[in-house]
Amino acid sequence: MTPIFFLFAFLLCTINSHVVARDFCVADLKGGVTSVGYPCKSPTNVTIDDFVFSNFKVGTSNQFNFSGAYAIVDNFPALNGLGFSIARAELEEGATIPLHAHVDADEVVIAGPGNYTTGFISSDNVVYIKTLTEGNIFVIPKGLLHFGFNAGKGKISTLYVLSSEKPSTQIVDLALFGSKLDSSIIQKTTFLDDAQIKKLKALFKGSG
Amino acid sequence: MTPIFFLFAFLLCTINSHVVARDFCVADLKGGVTSVGYPCKSPTNVTIDDFVFSNFKVGTSNQFNFSGAYAIVDNFPALNGLGFSIARAELEEGATIPLHAHVDADEVVIAGPGNYTTGFISSDNVVYIKTLTEGNIFVIPKGLLHFGFNAGKGKISTLYVLSSEKPSTQIVDLALFGSKLDSSIIQKTTFLDDAQIKKLKALFKGSG
Amino acid sequence: MTPIFFLFAFLLCTINSHVVARDFCVADLKGGVTSVGYPCKSPTNVTIDDFVFSNFKVGTSNQFNFSGAYAIVDNFPALNGLGFSIARAELEEGATIPLHAHVDADEVVIAGPGNYTTGFISSDNVVYIKTLTEGNIFVIPKGLLHFGFNAGKGKISTLYVLSSEKPSTQIVDLALFGSKLDSSIIQKTTFLDDAQIKKLKALFKGSG
Amino acid sequence: MTPIFFLFAFLLCTINSHVVARDFCVADLKGGVTSVGYPCKSPTNVTIDDFVFSNFKVGTSNQFNFSGAYAIVDNFPALNGLGFSIARAELEEGATIPLHAHVDADEVVIAGPGNYTTGFISSDNVVYIKTLTEGNIFVIPKGLLHFGFNAGKGKISTLYVLSSEKPSTQIVDLALFGSKLDSSIIQKTTFLDDAQIKKLKALFKGSG
Amino acid sequence: MTPIFFLFAFLLCTINSHVVARDFCVADLKGGVTSVGYPCKSPTNVTIDDFVFSNFKVGTSNQFNFSGAYAIVDNFPALNGLGFSIARAELEEGATIPLHAHVDADEVVIAGPGNYTTGFISSDNVVYIKTLTEGNIFVIPKGLLHFGFNAGKGKISTLYVLSSEKPSTQIVDLALFGSKLDSSIIQKTTFLDDAQIKKLKALFKGSG
Amino acid sequence: MTPIFFLFAFLLCTINSHVVARDFCVADLKGGVTSVGYPCKSPTNVTIDDFVFSNFKVGTSNQFNFSGAYAIVDNFPALNGLGFSIARAELEEGATIPLHAHVDADEVVIAGPGNYTTGFISSDNVVYIKTLTEGNIFVIPKGLLHFGFNAGKGKISTLYVLSSEKPSTQIVDLALFGSKLDSSIIQKTTFLDDAQIKKLKALFKGSG
Repeated sequence: MTPIFFLFAFLLCTINSHVVARDFCVADLKGGVTSVGYPCKSPTNVTIDDFVFSNFKVGTSNQFNFSGAYAIVDNFPALNGLGFSIARAELEEGATIPLHAHVDADEVVIAGPGNYTTGFISSDNVVYIKTLTEGNIFVIPKGLLHFGFNAGKGKISTLYVLSSEKPSTQIVDLALFGSKLDSSIIQKTTFLDDAQIKKLKALFKGSG
Repeated sequence: MTPIFFLFAFLLCTINSHVVARDFCVADLKGGVTSVGYPCKSPTNVTIDDFVFSNFKVGTSNQFNFSGAYAIVDNFPALNGLGFSIARAELEEGATIPLHAHVDADEVVIAGPGNYTTGFISSDNVVYIKTLTEGNIFVIPKGLLHFGFNAGKGKISTLYVLSSEKPSTQIVDLALFGSKLDSSIIQKTTFLDDAQIKKLKALFKGSG
Repeated sequence: MTPIFFLFAFLLCTINSHVVARDFCVADLKGGVTSVGYPCKSPTNVTIDDFVFSNFKVGTSNQFNFSGAYAIVDNFPALNGLGFSIARAELEEGATIPLHAHVDADEVVIAGPGNYTTGFISSDNVVYIKTLTEGNIFVIPKGLLHFGFNAGKGKISTLYVLSSEKPSTQIVDLALFGSKLDSSIIQKTTFLDDAQIKKLKALFKGSG
Repeated sequence: MTPIFFLFAFLLCTINSHVVARDFCVADLKGGVTSVGYPCKSPTNVTIDDFVFSNFKVGTSNQFNFSGAYAIVDNFPALNGLGFSIARAELEEGATIPLHAHVDADEVVIAGPGNYTTGFISSDNVVYIKTLTEGNIFVIPKGLLHFGFNAGKGKISTLYVLSSEKPSTQIVDLALFGSKLDSSIIQKTTFLDDAQIKKLKALFKGSG
Repeated sequence: MTPIFFLFAFLLCTINSHVVARDFCVADLKGGVTSVGYPCKSPTNVTIDDFVFSNFKVGTSNQFNFSGAYAIVDNFPALNGLGFSIARAELEEGATIPLHAHVDADEVVIAGPGNYTTGFISSDNVVYIKTLTEGNIFVIPKGLLHFGFNAGKGKISTLYVLSSEKPSTQIVDLALFGSKLDSSIIQKTTFLDDAQIKKLKALFKGSG
Repeated sequence: MTPIFFLFAFLLCTINSHVVARDFCVADLKGGVTSVGYPCKSPTNVTIDDFVFSNFKVGTSNQFNFSGAYAIVDNFPALNGLGFSIARAELEEGATIPLHAHVDADEVVIAGPGNYTTGFISSDNVVYIKTLTEGNIFVIPKGLLHFGFNAGKGKISTLYVLSSEKPSTQIVDLALFGSKLDSSIIQKTTFLDDAQIKKLKALFKGSG
């Protein structure tokens, strides 16, 4: 006779009943998105594979000095509701991450060996810049313009944690010169010269 | 050759991949409502028109001294997730906004020219009342009973920001006298006289 | 030799370090209040007594048919940050809880033996009313006007959970007739007769 | 003529329009779950019965010294979005609630007559334990291991409020000995002896 | 004899006790800021003046075609915890609001008479641009680059609601050319020509 | 003449005024903790060094097969309000992370080269276990019991992101056997044998 088992089963039943507990909310990517993310996949369909992401290995470098990988809710649904995502980059010597902002995410950089210079500008126009080496972590506050580049010899590797499971990135050059924004409006709102605008529009394939 | 373009495209790809970024969450009004609002309309279906609301012009005054306009998530889906909505009123001389509360929204009044008297009562029964003139902004805390009236000569105009994209309004007279609430219960729970209750029930079309 | 102990101590140290963990945030009632409640009492000063509230016994009935008790963050600091509080009432035969609203809290009533009639009015003026008996739980949504009364014979007991650790209560009669709100403004914004207003102002000790 | 009625109707219309106000969000249990709960049942389908829960009466005791009842969002949809649920237990003399944790909920115990001993262990391994009697309320912080037992003579009754509308409960014995977790892994990660593990696996019907 | 008064007083006492209710949290600007804003001013020191802001009148136009006013928590402490602030601008013919982003706030523009052209660029580089006239409201999602200008004849007036009680603004030109950011880093991360950078650094008083 | 500069300065002034913008909230560790973390250090005292953490290098292995490092808000104040922290471990061959739970944090493991077996048990007693290799990321939901061990040859390295800036860790063995919890209560609430309890109490230095 195992009265204890029944006692426990009862307790479980008392609290969790026949409903499956909601310990996690793995994204159902086919469900409609709300302002707080994806709906939950039915727990009965969740398996161990939902919690494992296997594509975070950095591949071979491409011709532009970059190799990268990222895990966000759209390719790793277990991140749904966790409030952060993870990215990784390898920068060949001389490589640069251009000026951009993550509109909905703080960024934490975990530097590997080498010299990675990164910086951000606050809204009162103070520049915070630092050359990181292995064992350094750096915080870039949400929404602020920032950049990074390999400041040393040889390839470097950096890891990023972003405080959004689906971070949004606005690259200034692409927003201005890779879009259809009219040149005269760019000139009026940035004070850049028309020739400069046209040159970069040509480079970034923008129109207008 | 434009290696920079590809570099940028790569970066964009690294972060945003094939998934459309979630910069905004315009309401899909046909989707099921949750406690945090409507689901997002697919970004690929969002156009410039989703961000523009064109019906905020105040019309001609009606026979009861009022003309109004409001923008909430149900008629302006771009407000989804923003946490506020906007309303506008024009009050003819003598017009009154009766005693009411917004159960889920703080209210900020932006006064136009003229004299608009408004007030609220705190839960410890202190009365905060003020006659506003142009250049005055007034805060009415969430959930508290409040009112307003044109305290001067001529028509006045007021603008309201409410801290909910779909604010709920409970008008005391309608709750009591425009509903089916039994007169004996009103009497018991408000200490109003039966004759007074019946008089206002007749006025506000209540039953019971 | 106990290497395992050191291994565990190391792990603990790795995660929690010398800093005291933040498992709970018992209110420091003398600290400044913020919009999210009281600051935390230093964990090193927290004792078992902080988690125990001993004054929830309902006393003997008073001459007005009531006896009550409540536990909110101000008399039970362990509720800080939990988002709810608890109250208890005993109503003698005929006792009534007058029309009121909790501006920041949903209310759940857990009925004891007897007949407790309670109801609320929604913002579209629908009346939801029910006579509860033992084994009934009733939900009153945040901010809406509601009331309750002993609808049967003999004394009854009710328990309340409110979704705020420091709920705010606005009683309509006290707001109007127990305050300094000017009678002419009450008349203008509620359509009550002046005689009725004056009668209730006398009863509830209001001025104006 | 009743101009006031129209004035009020106008006001109501101005704010709430044709859309049904969102005073509450009763769960549509058939809708897809998100990380913030169920979608709202259409207000037009909500009735008074949605706000009443009638199954909270404690039944007759079972053979294992327990009788219980609980109200969570899955059996009482009006709790959707309220952030808490309610449970009730009756413990015969000698009954014990085994070591467990609620991963997403603080717990508040409201003790009835008798002696109910309950305690929790903080993450820095301090034990907070207390024998409660009628008129005592006790707080158990979210996520921490805790337990309870009837420490006196005769049957006792306890009421619980949990700060989640669908709390999750992890019982240590069931997690370890009622699951398929491999015995060698249990041994390695808990330092329990193999014989002890096998004995409890037999009792709790675990495999591995 | 007024038993009802005492009954009500009792009820009030039961719920609110001797503690002052927390209907609002007017900012104590001298208190330490937290990530959720300022601490609350003691309710006993709050007066009607705390709820009124009197400096929202637009002044006379300056020589640069602008006149403006704004109400944020720092000059209108009653906005503390409300989650939005309000600004107002008058733009002379030809005036332009340069490219900028609000890192923590959605923006809603309420257009006055005239033609106000405003636009934003999404993170996938789509341009959303519109010329607004009186009776138009426009939403600019949080964090995205945007701009505005007077597109017609004569002076225009615009009102803004921002979904932060203390919005942060990053102006691209000032961040790059009004700061100490090194010219070579600007060149490397924006692909602007050195001559262009130096020209704008001279204009905006930047160094580096 | 540089009218544009003044125009910009005006705009900046209009929005940010004399108040320092709140782009970030670096923890003032000496300020009183609230349920949402530390107060903000005054922005005027914040320097580049506040954003850099330099102690994340993993040291030499200790005699118990471990070496570790972690960055939480208490040693890296720039994490204040970001909602996550970062830890790193190196496990020699055979090393084990014992059964524990983080009461307030989801955990994401980023595996390095080698074989790291990790698993968690859900509240319905399903075991989710996986041996990770380089390029694998694994999610362990908040509050659930979990463990890890080096399952291969040689030393391995793992990185962790925890969804709390100050995560709390409860180790089951230490809670039970490293505390003062009475042996008879452990026996009653875990069904472990007295001899087993005493053996582990001796190992983990517990009393009672």
